[in-house]
Amino acid sequence: MVGASDTSGWARFIVASSATVGYPGPLITVHPGHATAFGKPTVPSLRDLPDPVDLAFILAPVQAVERVLEDAGAAGVRSAIVLASGYREVGQDGRALEDQMVARARTNAVTVLGPNCLGFLNAHARSAPFALTVPKPLTAGPVGIALQSGALASVVLAFARSHAIGVSMLTTMGNESMISTLDVLDYLVEDENTRVICLFLEEIGDLEQFARAAGKADQAGKPIVALKVGSSAAGQRAALAHTGSVAGDDAVVDAVLRQLNVIRVTSIEDLLCTAALLGYDRWPRGRRMGVLTASGGACDIIADGASAQGIEIPDFAPETVAAIAPHLPPFAAAKNPLDVTGYVLANARVSALTPIDHALDAAVQDPGLDFVLFSGVAAPDVRPPDESVATIMEGRVAWLEQRMASSPVPVIPVGSTCVDLSEYGRQLLDRHHIHLLGGMEFGIRAIGHALRWVENRGHVWPGPDPGRNAASRVCPADGVWSEEAARSLLTDCGVPVVPAELVHSADEAVEAARRVGLPAALKICSAQIAHKSDIGGVALGLATDAAVRAGYDQVVAAGRSVPGARIDGVLVSVMRTGGIELLAGVTMDPAFGPVLALGLGGIWVEVLKDTSLRVLPVDADEVKRMLTELRGLPLLRGARGSRPADLDGLAKVITVLGDTAMSFKGALRALEVNPLWVNGDHVEALDVLVVTEPANAAETELTTC
Amino acid sequence: MVGASDTSGWARFIVASSATVGYPGPLITVHPGHATAFGKPTVPSLRDLPDPVDLAFILAPVQAVERVLEDAGAAGVRSAIVLASGYREVGQDGRALEDQMVARARTNAVTVLGPNCLGFLNAHARSAPFALTVPKPLTAGPVGIALQSGALASVVLAFARSHAIGVSMLTTMGNESMISTLDVLDYLVEDENTRVICLFLEEIGDLEQFARAAGKADQAGKPIVALKVGSSAAGQRAALAHTGSVAGDDAVVDAVLRQLNVIRVTSIEDLLCTAALLGYDRWPRGRRMGVLTASGGACDIIADGASAQGIEIPDFAPETVAAIAPHLPPFAAAKNPLDVTGYVLANARVSALTPIDHALDAAVQDPGLDFVLFSGVAAPDVRPPDESVATIMEGRVAWLEQRMASSPVPVIPVGSTCVDLSEYGRQLLDRHHIHLLGGMEFGIRAIGHALRWVENRGHVWPGPDPGRNAASRVCPADGVWSEEAARSLLTDCGVPVVPAELVHSADEAVEAARRVGLPAALKICSAQIAHKSDIGGVALGLATDAAVRAGYDQVVAAGRSVPGARIDGVLVSVMRTGGIELLAGVTMDPAFGPVLALGLGGIWVEVLKDTSLRVLPVDADEVKRMLTELRGLPLLRGARGSRPADLDGLAKVITVLGDTAMSFKGALRALEVNPLWVNGDHVEALDVLVVTEPANAAETELTTC
Repeated sequence: MVGASDTSGWARFIVASSATVGYPGPLITVHPGHATAFGKPTVPSLRDLPDPVDLAFILAPVQAVERVLEDAGAAGVRSAIVLASGYREVGQDGRALEDQMVARARTNAVTVLGPNCLGFLNAHARSAPFALTVPKPLTAGPVGIALQSGALASVVLAFARSHAIGVSMLTTMGNESMISTLDVLDYLVEDENTRVICLFLEEIGDLEQFARAAGKADQAGKPIVALKVGSSAAGQRAALAHTGSVAGDDAVVDAVLRQLNVIRVTSIEDLLCTAALLGYDRWPRGRRMGVLTASGGACDIIADGASAQGIEIPDFAPETVAAIAPHLPPFAAAKNPLDVTGYVLANARVSALTPIDHALDAAVQDPGLDFVLFSGVAAPDVRPPDESVATIMEGRVAWLEQRMASSPVPVIPVGSTCVDLSEYGRQLLDRHHIHLLGGMEFGIRAIGHALRWVENRGHVWPGPDPGRNAASRVCPADGVWSEEAARSLLTDCGVPVVPAELVHSADEAVEAARRVGLPAALKICSAQIAHKSDIGGVALGLATDAAVRAGYDQVVAAGRSVPGARIDGVLVSVMRTGGIELLAGVTMDPAFGPVLALGLGGIWVEVLKDTSLRVLPVDADEVKRMLTELRGLPLLRGARGSRPADLDGLAKVITVLGDTAMSFKGALRALEVNPLWVNGDHVEALDVLVVTEPANAAETELTTC
Repeated sequence: MVGASDTSGWARFIVASSATVGYPGPLITVHPGHATAFGKPTVPSLRDLPDPVDLAFILAPVQAVERVLEDAGAAGVRSAIVLASGYREVGQDGRALEDQMVARARTNAVTVLGPNCLGFLNAHARSAPFALTVPKPLTAGPVGIALQSGALASVVLAFARSHAIGVSMLTTMGNESMISTLDVLDYLVEDENTRVICLFLEEIGDLEQFARAAGKADQAGKPIVALKVGSSAAGQRAALAHTGSVAGDDAVVDAVLRQLNVIRVTSIEDLLCTAALLGYDRWPRGRRMGVLTASGGACDIIADGASAQGIEIPDFAPETVAAIAPHLPPFAAAKNPLDVTGYVLANARVSALTPIDHALDAAVQDPGLDFVLFSGVAAPDVRPPDESVATIMEGRVAWLEQRMASSPVPVIPVGSTCVDLSEYGRQLLDRHHIHLLGGMEFGIRAIGHALRWVENRGHVWPGPDPGRNAASRVCPADGVWSEEAARSLLTDCGVPVVPAELVHSADEAVEAARRVGLPAALKICSAQIAHKSDIGGVALGLATDAAVRAGYDQVVAAGRSVPGARIDGVLVSVMRTGGIELLAGVTMDPAFGPVLALGLGGIWVEVLKDTSLRVLPVDADEVKRMLTELRGLPLLRGARGSRPADLDGLAKVITVLGDTAMSFKGALRALEVNPLWVNGDHVEALDVLVVTEPANAAETELTTC
């Protein structure tokens, strides 16, 4: 601890944290001005150490940090934590100071965690260079944690303590000048004590590194649970204010996390309850849940929650009913969800196994269940004073441990509400390796998260540049492409485009309309006019020669009314009726690059914001998953009497669009097909917009009438 | 306690509960077979009591209950709790037994709570005839509770204990044979110790009584918070299984509760956290929140949660910024939400007021804030051993109490997560009348609930029969009404109907079409054909005489193809284009009577299920609120380029429809206008269906082709 005196609160926290985790090694205080600290002699500088220490926790003020780094380098200390604030998070000046500090660290071969961070703890290694309170007792366990907000660490540890959720490591990240959250994620994926990873994220960071780590985690069977903040505009401002980081568009963030099979939660309770379920319990392989409770009200609450999460509560098999019924009072029904009734509570003779235990014995054998939610775990405030009662109760818990271990399906014990375990309850359950989920609300939600994680395993997005889009496209145009060029691009790539011809007179329009088919649609073509229908540049449903002729005159007049618009001609295409119109577009996200947006057209996108997003590239399977996420999916399946769309064929076309967008290697601004028309297995781009990076930025101002 | 022996678990619970609440009165055991119980002599029968007791808790088995009621009557005991199960909840036989038991009670002038219940407790009166564990300590406080699932009582009390939420009364309802949940609700509305009411509901019960009690509660300023289960099909089955009650359609239940300004929640945590906020804290009058925390991560989480609840976090006023800034470290920004940073934690000199306290002093004066969320409350595990530290900390809490009391806006203290208060923290905060909301997640959600409750005050639905629909309509038809009769009904009531004429030949159709206006719509009229368009009985967009003639032939042919359909003629109406189509319909809910459903037509109803529901009657203000609940509202406001609809005019027309439905006094089956067309201030029923109770049920089978 460099710069630690008796009056430093941070130092006192480090001393206390080290004691809490049982840190065995020496904790040396370095201070130039105090001869003793915390009752022990200090050394004046790191240079005065006989041997280099493993880690220097630099508590010195910001202006002294670099000198300490010099000392560390000279003393052969290779790792440091920098606590001081006043760097990148305060703006431009701080950023320069931080760059200078990092350069100094590199010169001296020191790796820095922080600055502006509170250190870390490793419960298994009993190490806690951690300048915050550690609530006692700290249980060592499967949950690895990295936090982009250090002050949350004690909040997170306090909740974990309350629910006996064991922690492997917890790291506060600070400004991530040399060690990033993703570096810690990488470490936790490989750490053998960590079985599940919790992240508090203000920003995603390097997408390629995240994707690589997420893929490794998915393969290793280590779920990642992330509380990613910034879903609200105000939240984004808050994130900006205190770390200086740039939060991405939240809908894209959501898509990215889904692609990486990272479970996204919105509260600390959800973060830890979900992690505990995945870290302690066996994972359910399916959605069919057996429910065993001692309260009808609990059955109701669980059933409602399960329904919201898409978890099924099927009827018990007849043999399960037959096995359970004899253990219930006559007025209780052997149904799923099961209420064994409070009758058991009043049975004065404490017995080795209670009705809910017998029900568990039967339910785990039910072939129709994928897992059993068990709310019959006893964890009283204190050990029952009557020794025989205590012995029987503790025997029941030991029985449960064995029963769970030998059960063919996972048994998930759950508490009623999110209340703390008592000290006695914690010790008893811990001894028998039973983890109790923190109440029905968080428990059911955690199970929902876990099921989605299990279901999405095996197809984690490989990242932004997996090498499968080797072909790079030469840009034939820049700014807004002409209608013809855009249509050619799609045709060349294999995307079906509606038959159409570019004409330059009313006579040509009539002839073209006869060729492509009536009724026809006419549209003015000009790179300078983006929203054609708003200015009368589109004429639809032209069923006769005369109508086509009149339509031609109309759209040309509309085009001429736009000052400076260069008219390329008029596009004559056949009208498509029936079927369903989609929007499929690729835009560039400043943080994540090309993003594919899919939605049903019209109100679906404009009013309902019903779109599915993915960062590119994606394959056809993933595009099909996008389609199934749309609220308008029933329309594609034929809900309003239309022909059900061929979703596989549709997904293939959209995948080609995405690959086409990727082939521009960053030179693309937008590629949008709107509408993309589908009628059964007939898929066609009715209109397409392509915008690429301009050679000359001044030329590209769109006329948006 | 009648039928209580030493081996009765129920009796032991009652004895323990009475001790926990400090019950001062005598607790007498009545047993015919045991001379002593719980170390005291028993009496053989209630008849042997020298004076009548206030209450008999009947623990006797089901077959002995009626004999005990006879004894009670003879002994002058007027109140009883019946614990036994085996009544209504087990089916037909049990229902008969319960009726017989109730008759016996009435004959003996005894009022029964239960059967199949666990009693109640009154914390202020220190009375606890309550056959379940009461977690210690039980705090007397503002929250009154009634539970339709008795076994949940100890779960509810345990959570309340963990968060120092004080209870006035808690009642388990059982089968409600003589005292219903609504009777208890009535009592709690008048109980001076109760400031907020919590209900666990499996069924709503008598709507008129509920509406009356809800109106009284709203006037008295006592919020009602309800955990109403049965939102899922499985949930409804669970409710059915263990109480035998019939749960209504959940969407209608949701509407009813909203009409009664009853806050609906989905978990026990939400139930109690919301009740605690409303019972302890001053209610915010608006949605502008100031946020004071010591962690940037907390700011982010709160901002995201607030955004989801529609709570604003506006910028501080310049004078607030100026007042706060001097108390912050140089690297922290005086912004809303405010992070005073962990710096304060490390300040070794414990001071009377910390930066977050100074920030509070400034924020409560900010004219742009309606309330302040304060996460700077100290509630440590144990009293700090250093007396001076403890004194300063406790002084801060005392200061906070005064600051909150004198603040011009409500100050709402919130914890970080949902963890238990320590015994010390509970006592400290309780002494200073400070309640700490159970974490950011539940806290923000509770504030959202509270704001909606405050905003909805003053217009609670007066109930199903407030006497304002005195006029009763004579039914001119039964079953499915003819087109003409249905259109006349609307016209007579003042609902605008699209111009149309009933014709009986193609020639008449052409003439009628010229009169009503082209293009025309033709529709076959037959009471036996409900879904006309499905069989080709509708022709739309007929722009010429020839088209009208062809359309006439088409719809008549379609009508003739339906076996047994009596054709009344063909309705010729003008086609309406542009504008927006709604659906406005009244159907009869088996539990709640006439229900008005409003939605935008087509996919909005069929695919998106985007409807707003209300139990009738409703006034135009409420109908306007219904319109604003629709996700498609932007369309009505002109989002897709249409004229914004006159919502007041539209609401008036729909209100008339509702009143018309009510005037049938229960003889209505359905009254549906679909579409109800609106274009600016032009509102018109384009099609109407009226079905009333038939004189002869056999006649009314609809032909639904």
